[in-house]
Amino acid sequence: MSGRFVTFEGTDKAGKRTQIRILAETLQRRGHQVITVREPGGTLLGERVRNVLMSPDLSGLMTPQAEVFLFSACRSELVRSVIRPALESGKVVLCERFFDSTLAYQGYGRGLDLEWLREIIDYSIDGVIPDLTLLLQVSVSTSYERRARLTSMDSAFRQDIFEQSGESFFSRVEQGFKELAKEEPNRIQVIDGHGSIKEVAQRILETLERCDIGLWFWVWQ
Amino acid sequence: MSGRFVTFEGTDKAGKRTQIRILAETLQRRGHQVITVREPGGTLLGERVRNVLMSPDLSGLMTPQAEVFLFSACRSELVRSVIRPALESGKVVLCERFFDSTLAYQGYGRGLDLEWLREIIDYSIDGVIPDLTLLLQVSVSTSYERRARLTSMDSAFRQDIFEQSGESFFSRVEQGFKELAKEEPNRIQVIDGHGSIKEVAQRILETLERCDIGLWFWVWQ
Repeated sequence: MSGRFVTFEGTDKAGKRTQIRILAETLQRRGHQVITVREPGGTLLGERVRNVLMSPDLSGLMTPQAEVFLFSACRSELVRSVIRPALESGKVVLCERFFDSTLAYQGYGRGLDLEWLREIIDYSIDGVIPDLTLLLQVSVSTSYERRARLTSMDSAFRQDIFEQSGESFFSRVEQGFKELAKEEPNRIQVIDGHGSIKEVAQRILETLERCDIGLWFWVWQ
Repeated sequence: MSGRFVTFEGTDKAGKRTQIRILAETLQRRGHQVITVREPGGTLLGERVRNVLMSPDLSGLMTPQAEVFLFSACRSELVRSVIRPALESGKVVLCERFFDSTLAYQGYGRGLDLEWLREIIDYSIDGVIPDLTLLLQVSVSTSYERRARLTSMDSAFRQDIFEQSGESFFSRVEQGFKELAKEEPNRIQVIDGHGSIKEVAQRILETLERCDIGLWFWVWQ
């Protein structure tokens, strides 16, 4: 596959979506064809299932296993109908959350067996593994501050099921992401998510340059 | 678990729902506590996902792998939050479709690897296997006749995704159910689904008596 696949991971309000938008614009200006997707979602099926996953009336009523299967359905659909075809046609795919989130949230966060999760993930990704994963890290207090700011700015902002799970849950998820980054220090690059949007964007560009997954090479040759 | 778990399988319009209703009434009259569920569905999550699976605008656009994961989410939820607790409290659970449908439809019908499907199924059922599976068999022509009758009777009747898949698909599904029954002749009992509702109900009662999974014993002791 001639494209490049970059995923963005991290806890809530780490800045994933904003940074994806900025990186997509940067890469497009340099001549790349870029698509951005989010998980769960990114397909008609995925967006429908996303709505189910985020329904407030299902909050706390869903077994974690069912949650994993729903995410796997979205991922499986997204990989086969969007990500793989885009990579095969040489595009850069930027994806908000991918399987590392399943390991961090359902594994470390909700306590499901990591081995079981890795098997289910294998079934859903069809061999498509990110060339690079950017793990945006912010402290719990920064995450809470940003959330509070958003909540007062946007009355439609929803306290979804993940956000209702409490602080200890998020500490476990955060710890999980750190463990994953330790296990795969080449694929997963930790990015300091504090500071201004511009500062974080600059760190991401430097990381991309340093990791050399072929995006810069294409530009300069 | 002191309850009994009976699943009803078979192609479309084999009479599963009608016969579940009748058997539930019969068992209740004989003093059993009975619950009836359907798959996908039977839980708040399951009914929501059922709507996604049955959306006409997703017809033919969903990868079969995503379909399997969605069914697994429903099954996982149904087993853990409804079926297992009911069985543990001594109830009889009658379920319309269970994992044999996944093997028949997604395996034999859509051509997914049966070994892969069995592993995913293992992950979703949490060890809960039916004591008895009643496979209602009708010929393709009977199925089509019943469907045609329903369609003219009920304008709200929907040609859902499974019904749009054509006759060769259904022949493969039918064949799949037959193979499964051959592999597990004790658990899966084939019931001739032709004839009147009463005749089929009588065949089911005779089969339950013959198979002796404890339902009759409880009544007479």
